[in-house]
Amino acid sequence: MAHTSYTNCIGTFVFDDKKLVEEKLSGKKEILTNSAKMTAETPPFYVLEALAQPKYLALMREATILITKRKVAESLRPEYLVVQAVSNVDEIDKVANNLAKRLREWYELYNPEFSKSIEAHEKFAELIQQKTRKELLAELGMTEAESMGAEIPAEDMKPIMELAKQMSELYALRARHAEYIETTMTRLLPNVTAMCGSMIGAKLLAVAGSLEKLALFPASTIQLLGAEKALFRHIKTGAKPPKFGIIINHPIVARTKPADKGKAARMLADKISIAAKIDFFKGEFKGDALRKEVEEKFR
Amino acid sequence: MAHTSYTNCIGTFVFDDKKLVEEKLSGKKEILTNSAKMTAETPPFYVLEALAQPKYLALMREATILITKRKVAESLRPEYLVVQAVSNVDEIDKVANNLAKRLREWYELYNPEFSKSIEAHEKFAELIQQKTRKELLAELGMTEAESMGAEIPAEDMKPIMELAKQMSELYALRARHAEYIETTMTRLLPNVTAMCGSMIGAKLLAVAGSLEKLALFPASTIQLLGAEKALFRHIKTGAKPPKFGIIINHPIVARTKPADKGKAARMLADKISIAAKIDFFKGEFKGDALRKEVEEKFR
Repeated sequence: MAHTSYTNCIGTFVFDDKKLVEEKLSGKKEILTNSAKMTAETPPFYVLEALAQPKYLALMREATILITKRKVAESLRPEYLVVQAVSNVDEIDKVANNLAKRLREWYELYNPEFSKSIEAHEKFAELIQQKTRKELLAELGMTEAESMGAEIPAEDMKPIMELAKQMSELYALRARHAEYIETTMTRLLPNVTAMCGSMIGAKLLAVAGSLEKLALFPASTIQLLGAEKALFRHIKTGAKPPKFGIIINHPIVARTKPADKGKAARMLADKISIAAKIDFFKGEFKGDALRKEVEEKFR
Repeated sequence: MAHTSYTNCIGTFVFDDKKLVEEKLSGKKEILTNSAKMTAETPPFYVLEALAQPKYLALMREATILITKRKVAESLRPEYLVVQAVSNVDEIDKVANNLAKRLREWYELYNPEFSKSIEAHEKFAELIQQKTRKELLAELGMTEAESMGAEIPAEDMKPIMELAKQMSELYALRARHAEYIETTMTRLLPNVTAMCGSMIGAKLLAVAGSLEKLALFPASTIQLLGAEKALFRHIKTGAKPPKFGIIINHPIVARTKPADKGKAARMLADKISIAAKIDFFKGEFKGDALRKEVEEKFR
């Protein structure tokens, strides 16, 4: 039997020599992998004729749904996983901050002086698990009798310590995720990562949506990624235009003196744009050289 | 040597027979535990005279600071720890919710159908750790080929699974804290807990601030605890007054038909008020009997 196939926007159809849609349609695999080309001899109206039969219509519906599902599944770009990880790290930061405030309020009933003496939440959660109140107070040159902390029985301290442990685990998870972002960014976007580090790079990627979009943006767009609110406020109300978005946190911009920050951001965005294009079109690694160029200019 | 002592709002002072503040002031313990009573022979002006000497003034300053610190430390009411635990459980609920949304968004790239099929975040986080995608889809009567989920390499799945594990641990912590609240509430406020369960009881306690306050509130205040916003809106703008606060979640109020909810809340608050008074004044346990009374009325 001779076969022909027909491809249109809804999919690829295989016809037998009587110009009827083949029963084989139900062998789903075959539709999906069919690579036959549409030929001039299979005009569309044969398809419509065949689809008038309910049996084939149902088969085709099923087949096109499957094709669509496969296309959805295949549409996942690898960099999208990094974008997810970055949002997650941001969320963990927020979450850890909220839990830390609760932990401190609770723990301060027991040992207020130590809590006030240390600002970093992570270190705080760690230390109160490792050392006794007496040891922690001794470091501040105090005794337990001089503390305003109350005596709390062990069974009431337990939930506080469990919360501290959970906090430490949350921070450890954050560290592992940051490492994952670092590794993956270095693999997928080596040049962008060399230019601006994995976190800033991943955030640019997240706002852009995909590496393709990031690569095709002009440098001026990259400069303002993450400053959309200020940009639209400028367009709508004529307020001062923003000079930088996410890249404000880049060490080069951060350490430049205020008057030059805008200039630094412009040059940085320029080079990031080049780096993104190299990454997208799989060019040779040039990230370090690009970064050095900007660094030398703004020392 | 004969000693006299003088007590005023700043503390207790010990004098020797020459009416000078004793050097013993520096023996801090003695001041704190001194139980001698003020006598008619030690008029206040002797104190003032002694304090004119810088040495004694400094000593007294130190002593009174210590006394104040001790008082702060001793002011911790045991029920305040439960209040902290309740706020913490609320925070964990919020935090777990936010993380669960992130986990789902991330995991849905891999297996969207399963995520959509299960609503409970806790169960979701648990199941994706226990079973493979194939098994989870099989339960929905699907194969992996029919899923819209993408193929994700193992190293990219790892951070997702770590997040799921963290979620499960967070839920476990919440469960342990809820248990702690239950145990402590039953010990400290047995009657209130019998009346309305540990969580609602602890929330009432948290809003009231202390058991003493809760015990001294009239029943109508207890009825509206937690509905402060609606109450003040009523007072300011004449909007409809609230009928219940935290106790709206009490099973008796929750299952009563809308028209009778207000009545049920009033009667319930009445009995909770009695229960709180019994708890505060350490009376005999009557919580179960009180609860039964309300339950029989609103069956």
